[in-house]
Amino acid sequence: MSFETLVRDITGRARAASARTSELRSDVKDAALLRIADRLEEASAELIAANALDLEASRAGGSGGADGLDGPMLERLALDEPRIAGMAAGVRDVAALADPVGEVTRMWNRPNGLQVGRMRIPLGSVLIIYESRPTVTADAAALCLKSGNATILRGGKEARHSNRAIAEIIRAALREGGVPEDAVQLVPDPAREIVDLLLEREDEIDLVIPRGGEALIRRVSERSRIPVIKHYKGVCHVYLDEHADPKMARDIAINSKCQRVSVCNSAETLLVHTALADTVLPDLVSELRGLGVEVRGCERTRSRCPDTVAASEADWSEEYLSMTLAVRVVDSLDDAIDHIRRYGSDHTESIVTDNVRRAHEFVRRVNSSSVFVNASTRFSDGFELGLGAEIGVSTTKMHWYGPMGIEGLTTQKFIAFGDGTLKE
Amino acid sequence: MSFETLVRDITGRARAASARTSELRSDVKDAALLRIADRLEEASAELIAANALDLEASRAGGSGGADGLDGPMLERLALDEPRIAGMAAGVRDVAALADPVGEVTRMWNRPNGLQVGRMRIPLGSVLIIYESRPTVTADAAALCLKSGNATILRGGKEARHSNRAIAEIIRAALREGGVPEDAVQLVPDPAREIVDLLLEREDEIDLVIPRGGEALIRRVSERSRIPVIKHYKGVCHVYLDEHADPKMARDIAINSKCQRVSVCNSAETLLVHTALADTVLPDLVSELRGLGVEVRGCERTRSRCPDTVAASEADWSEEYLSMTLAVRVVDSLDDAIDHIRRYGSDHTESIVTDNVRRAHEFVRRVNSSSVFVNASTRFSDGFELGLGAEIGVSTTKMHWYGPMGIEGLTTQKFIAFGDGTLKE
Repeated sequence: MSFETLVRDITGRARAASARTSELRSDVKDAALLRIADRLEEASAELIAANALDLEASRAGGSGGADGLDGPMLERLALDEPRIAGMAAGVRDVAALADPVGEVTRMWNRPNGLQVGRMRIPLGSVLIIYESRPTVTADAAALCLKSGNATILRGGKEARHSNRAIAEIIRAALREGGVPEDAVQLVPDPAREIVDLLLEREDEIDLVIPRGGEALIRRVSERSRIPVIKHYKGVCHVYLDEHADPKMARDIAINSKCQRVSVCNSAETLLVHTALADTVLPDLVSELRGLGVEVRGCERTRSRCPDTVAASEADWSEEYLSMTLAVRVVDSLDDAIDHIRRYGSDHTESIVTDNVRRAHEFVRRVNSSSVFVNASTRFSDGFELGLGAEIGVSTTKMHWYGPMGIEGLTTQKFIAFGDGTLKE
Repeated sequence: MSFETLVRDITGRARAASARTSELRSDVKDAALLRIADRLEEASAELIAANALDLEASRAGGSGGADGLDGPMLERLALDEPRIAGMAAGVRDVAALADPVGEVTRMWNRPNGLQVGRMRIPLGSVLIIYESRPTVTADAAALCLKSGNATILRGGKEARHSNRAIAEIIRAALREGGVPEDAVQLVPDPAREIVDLLLEREDEIDLVIPRGGEALIRRVSERSRIPVIKHYKGVCHVYLDEHADPKMARDIAINSKCQRVSVCNSAETLLVHTALADTVLPDLVSELRGLGVEVRGCERTRSRCPDTVAASEADWSEEYLSMTLAVRVVDSLDDAIDHIRRYGSDHTESIVTDNVRRAHEFVRRVNSSSVFVNASTRFSDGFELGLGAEIGVSTTKMHWYGPMGIEGLTTQKFIAFGDGTLKE
């Protein structure tokens, strides 16, 4: 089969399946999800065996070693019993969520008696393009199925055996439950040409979500004719206001930076009001350094903390994802907001303050996708914010902004009930 | 200035202005809108004079007559006192709408005490590409300003003098009210190359709305790197269910087809349950024909109404926008829904029935952007549904689906209030 024929076959099947998944009752979807979770756990040995083939190929480095993966990538690729149990638990969590399909979010009456409302419906078919983590196969399929969508999954070539094994188990569980198996399809060949062809099928795919590094996201959004939810980098800020409680300021700064450094919602820049420069800042910097954080400071920071590295202009827009923190002293809330607008990435910012006017001004004026008061930036996450699960974090404003759960996989239609209502 | 420099200048100004328009208080925006309305009316003579230049050029047909416009296009292009008053009234209506910016649509508590919500914010900068109707200049600018966005307007070349005059009045009124004039910019030259360059500026423009014919929309969405809200054709259906009240069935069919035929929400296909084929259908068809409607029927329709034209396969997906109606007899609600899914354009469908189960099944299963019960398809419109105004009707599901008012020109950020809340 040519790539073109293959792609037409996949997208046609997805479109046909989506007409059926959009109508599935909640109990049928939930039963299918619970069955998927059970079958994944029952097949642990089989999944670990398939995963071993991927790990071996990745360690060997393919043809000539060019594809050899490093330690963290191998770690992400690996499946073991606890990870499979975690994947199954994630699918059960999705089953436990409220069904978004059919929810009427608002309803109102018009003067002529027409009762108008908006009702949630699935988007249709969703293409997920991801890299080395095979557990995404189950996560993404579960969220899309619960929201009534058909999914086309295109995993990384390094995880091809694992992904194929997981997808086959999911499809078998769907068939068992009378759900069309084409509700979840895995692209059988991870060739790039197939991705390019998929990205042209705007009549049969409604949304593309690339999950992976910036290079993947840029490549997909440049080529796609289909809307893309982009999740670019997180240059998150903590701003310690002049009215911050000193202990809370310290706690939130340290938690936002250090609780986990390799994730997009960890803080990369600390902004400190000048009134705290001689009181809170020196101790905080020395504590951060004691925890192993390399502090890159502005001139005013360095005049108080001379052992810190000098920050360059590039540091203000850097997503370190490591134990490094840029620190700048600012004169006012205005200056803090200007800094965030200039260097931020629309991800997550937090103010620490006891002053209600400062808090509300920060919330009102900062239009990043998550804006917090007296809370760690690490809460910018679908689970932590109460969405139940997360398919990504959108840093572009169209359709969805910020952590995205199943609601982001739906849209709303208008519905109206009349009584023979005619336009005059 | 080269086109490239011009485009960079326009988009940079829009981005800078949007940072300020996003923060404007409601009373400042409303005062600016009322001032715009007043200034437009005061400048009627000036606007009519500018419009006369456009009308003259269009009648003359530019170089060699190739650009000569037909009657309906000249009619759309023309400005007179009542039309200017209507444009001003539209701007005042927008001033009277509730400000969507800052609205908290939901707020909930997390187990750790974090209070999480979603707050509406502007999209940023919006590019509107439109054709011959100069009143769009004021309509679109008003909706975008009210929702806190900066607007880049690119009107048709046939309306260039009119658009320039309207835009200058709007910008002067903004300056008077202390609102940055670059909140509303008109592209000074309607060259296509400029549009193509604008469509590449995805870092400075957040949304493109093409308002015009299908060719314009296709061209824009094929070239754009920026998200596009598409408003394709309206192949709207009325389905007369077996349980329809005969009088209501007649009224809604006639109103949906005939109340105004040239608009996207008029009905193009009538589906009739076979139980009504011998009772309601013959009289209805003859009444429609009496009103001047050309009926193109399926075989079963023609066996009852032999004077009708035979419908071809192409008729089922035709957007006539004229006094023509395709009519098909179907055996069941299932068949009606299958027909709508196969031939419809996701715009608007209406069922006429007294049976509540049929009504709810239709609403649940038909996922067009507007789905009505016992109401004319002509209500699928931002004003009629209560949105206050309309910037378009989206027939694609991402971001907004159906008639789109100011809410569609916003997105939502997450906000959260903690009490020193840390991630464990």
